[in-house]
Amino acid sequence: LAFAAWVRQNEGMCRFVAYRGEPIFLEELVARPQHSLLQQSLHAEHAKTVTNGDGFGIGWYGEKDEPAVYREVMPAWSDENLLALTATVRAGLFFAHVRAATGGGIARSNCHPFRMGEHLFMHNGQIGGFPWVRRALEGLLPDHLYAHRKGATDSELLFLLALSRIEEGLEPGDAVMWALGEARHEMRRHGITEPLRFAAALSNGEQLHVFRISSDDRPPSLYLQQDGRGVTVASEPLAGDEGSWNLIPAGAVLCIGPHGVEQRLEVLH
Amino acid sequence: LAFAAWVRQNEGMCRFVAYRGEPIFLEELVARPQHSLLQQSLHAEHAKTVTNGDGFGIGWYGEKDEPAVYREVMPAWSDENLLALTATVRAGLFFAHVRAATGGGIARSNCHPFRMGEHLFMHNGQIGGFPWVRRALEGLLPDHLYAHRKGATDSELLFLLALSRIEEGLEPGDAVMWALGEARHEMRRHGITEPLRFAAALSNGEQLHVFRISSDDRPPSLYLQQDGRGVTVASEPLAGDEGSWNLIPAGAVLCIGPHGVEQRLEVLH
Amino acid sequence: LAFAAWVRQNEGMCRFVAYRGEPIFLEELVARPQHSLLQQSLHAEHAKTVTNGDGFGIGWYGEKDEPAVYREVMPAWSDENLLALTATVRAGLFFAHVRAATGGGIARSNCHPFRMGEHLFMHNGQIGGFPWVRRALEGLLPDHLYAHRKGATDSELLFLLALSRIEEGLEPGDAVMWALGEARHEMRRHGITEPLRFAAALSNGEQLHVFRISSDDRPPSLYLQQDGRGVTVASEPLAGDEGSWNLIPAGAVLCIGPHGVEQRLEVLH
Amino acid sequence: LAFAAWVRQNEGMCRFVAYRGEPIFLEELVARPQHSLLQQSLHAEHAKTVTNGDGFGIGWYGEKDEPAVYREVMPAWSDENLLALTATVRAGLFFAHVRAATGGGIARSNCHPFRMGEHLFMHNGQIGGFPWVRRALEGLLPDHLYAHRKGATDSELLFLLALSRIEEGLEPGDAVMWALGEARHEMRRHGITEPLRFAAALSNGEQLHVFRISSDDRPPSLYLQQDGRGVTVASEPLAGDEGSWNLIPAGAVLCIGPHGVEQRLEVLH
Repeated sequence: LAFAAWVRQNEGMCRFVAYRGEPIFLEELVARPQHSLLQQSLHAEHAKTVTNGDGFGIGWYGEKDEPAVYREVMPAWSDENLLALTATVRAGLFFAHVRAATGGGIARSNCHPFRMGEHLFMHNGQIGGFPWVRRALEGLLPDHLYAHRKGATDSELLFLLALSRIEEGLEPGDAVMWALGEARHEMRRHGITEPLRFAAALSNGEQLHVFRISSDDRPPSLYLQQDGRGVTVASEPLAGDEGSWNLIPAGAVLCIGPHGVEQRLEVLH
Repeated sequence: LAFAAWVRQNEGMCRFVAYRGEPIFLEELVARPQHSLLQQSLHAEHAKTVTNGDGFGIGWYGEKDEPAVYREVMPAWSDENLLALTATVRAGLFFAHVRAATGGGIARSNCHPFRMGEHLFMHNGQIGGFPWVRRALEGLLPDHLYAHRKGATDSELLFLLALSRIEEGLEPGDAVMWALGEARHEMRRHGITEPLRFAAALSNGEQLHVFRISSDDRPPSLYLQQDGRGVTVASEPLAGDEGSWNLIPAGAVLCIGPHGVEQRLEVLH
Repeated sequence: LAFAAWVRQNEGMCRFVAYRGEPIFLEELVARPQHSLLQQSLHAEHAKTVTNGDGFGIGWYGEKDEPAVYREVMPAWSDENLLALTATVRAGLFFAHVRAATGGGIARSNCHPFRMGEHLFMHNGQIGGFPWVRRALEGLLPDHLYAHRKGATDSELLFLLALSRIEEGLEPGDAVMWALGEARHEMRRHGITEPLRFAAALSNGEQLHVFRISSDDRPPSLYLQQDGRGVTVASEPLAGDEGSWNLIPAGAVLCIGPHGVEQRLEVLH
Repeated sequence: LAFAAWVRQNEGMCRFVAYRGEPIFLEELVARPQHSLLQQSLHAEHAKTVTNGDGFGIGWYGEKDEPAVYREVMPAWSDENLLALTATVRAGLFFAHVRAATGGGIARSNCHPFRMGEHLFMHNGQIGGFPWVRRALEGLLPDHLYAHRKGATDSELLFLLALSRIEEGLEPGDAVMWALGEARHEMRRHGITEPLRFAAALSNGEQLHVFRISSDDRPPSLYLQQDGRGVTVASEPLAGDEGSWNLIPAGAVLCIGPHGVEQRLEVLH
């Protein structure tokens, strides 16, 4: 019963992969493993009933500061462009995301990863009761970021909120935690009892920040694998060899940089 | 075991609905029932592992002889146009289809239903070893239908083959059986042991022909429901009330016209 | 020179058609005339350099209070669904729109016509300096309409603003004029010197309101044709017979109902 | 008059760019020049009335033998993915193409460039009376290439025909000329008086073959620019500096390799 409830809670969730390490072809994580992100788009194991067919996206850092982004509203599994791109593009820092729409409509502007300047962001989870707090949270955006808002998702909004503090000099992990805190504040103010659940990745091209946190005790799943080549973070283990994957603890904020992985634990009230 | 095998055999199959009777809003069958075609596009019951997210289409007869067709490569469940259309369009004869690609690529020209003049056709199933017999079967098309071929699916080809005989005056049921016979002939000639499985609907705006037949003993599922309002044919029962749905027998060719349902049984060697 | 300047001013503008009268097939205005909306999507005469290929939409009132909407991000001229729909659907009140993006991104949620409940709205023109006044104008929306905002265009926002007053009982023409007045107020407050130009159609299923107004003396073109069958409003005359089309005067607010066309003139400061 | 006639003849034609030289970002030719391919997709100069909005594609050779391909049915000018990709991807051999559909329907499988193994091909022009000779020309394909045919265009067919001879060891230029000869043979056999016009690029990852040839005296335009960095071929000069662009002579077959450009002249009867 508990498991069925857990599954139900996870319905409508997305799946993602982030990588930082030696340059590899994107397909090595996105298309090739037994349980690759493409496979997960058809049937995710850890969220039994979910089909993630409402768009997808990849983002990667190449020779420029600004990352490239390819986003599409079609299901990932049927997109020949995605296969061709991931077979050819090699990068040392990249994101990939498949979407199960929980709101905001099917449009490229609602697909992850989101990009702004040199920043890349993707998200799995949800702000409980978002329609009721959206207005107050959008009110916190400075004018220039408000004008930049293109879609209607909570994900894009959390990204822009975090950016507003990063621009002021806040450390990225703290900036995201501030945005989540504001969201929780508004949720309480509106009497929303649904949880805020948040698994996410954020990068500036150098560091990769990863989050797994929730206002209840059920943050979306997120796993970490480390080997000589680099660090991979994924909503679900990508290969049959599940032993090498470690569940990231609830409340964790990871900073993955040139000197490895730093982890701290946060609490979201 | 037998069931698991059956399910595996049915992987990658499509789902469809056809209706003939008093005019009703398309949504009554496509979007509203508990287990509507839209629901089936996300998780089909009778083909447990299938997601039918590789395009969809609807076709209906309005005030003209030629039917209207709306086909899209996106998943049916995320298409707002489909919801709006089926909520507004009312017809006494219509088709709806969700596709799980088994070949031919993701393109509107490969989506069902196919239209040619006043004819409408949709299909669930597969010609075993199609890449090996495609050329010979395309060779049977008369020039003007060969020039009309837009996609690369076995479905469109079977439709055009049947039309070539309908144009010569053959009864539609016989024309389709001839096309299936030619396909089986070429399959045997090429030593193909995979089966030909065929559930389909064909209409000229007056009659609705329905087929459930296979070269082995496992044709795709197809159910019939009849009430005071009209006749509905569906890959799976559409509502919780499964008692009112009858499995169409293997080998059946149905002709649904103004005077009801006529059924005959055919054998496909 | 004056003409070239005028053309330049009109760059990036959309084209639309609205009809109220005896039921006709949509194709009679959308696809068939010598200079139909489909033709205009490829090369508009009155805005020489414009290609309107950034999406399109049609909306029509059928047997229900709520209108149907079909919107697509592809160019209208290449969409086979559009041809099939307009050849089959017959309506006594319908809208059609081809878009040249001026902002807001290419997404179905940014395509016209917009629908909310039984209301339909489409627009050609622009709020000058929209990024600077967007926030203040969105602030005027009541919560339930704020939550309903899906895209990022000025068009959708003006529609929702007008609806907020229509819900309070204001006459539709007055409600739209109020929204335009608020937009002008914010434009002045932000020192924006670009004009607000507005050609639009709004319907509740009974009446069709049409607007051609501007804060300068160059509102987007809009023509009216009246015959025994009904009233047609179009950005450009649809047929070679231009004599039967009358340019709607600048400042006009038209109310087209069962008893014909009422016109009043307004001023936008 | 002659010019107007020439323009009319060129209606419906595509535009493309091919590059071989030192690695550069694709945007340097596709998105940035004053008269870039993206600009040409909106209004081509040398084919005054054409909008090339029926899909586009890019293909490039990266670190693998097989090239990457990104093709989309939307207009190039509105595709954010295209801007992001061309800003990030750097290659020493690449193709870009914008399409004005002349037949075959709007589908990714009909968009250029076409890829097969390590070969890349794109085309501007048309086989006169193609529907009448299509069948005979498809009959020349060996089985494995026949099975590979996905679309319905003359372009894909000419590519597959040329490949059939390349696989047998024929030099690529000769292989293409053979395919054109066969097309002309069938055109004569069917009494077709429309011309065959052919501007195209073909590469195996090493050499770049370029063709500008016609059965009449009006092959589609094609220009060549050579500088210290590399060789660019384009349907129209890409920058204001038209002086550095040379019109490739009618009948030319160019082989652009590590040792420069070799040119020979052919005649197409």
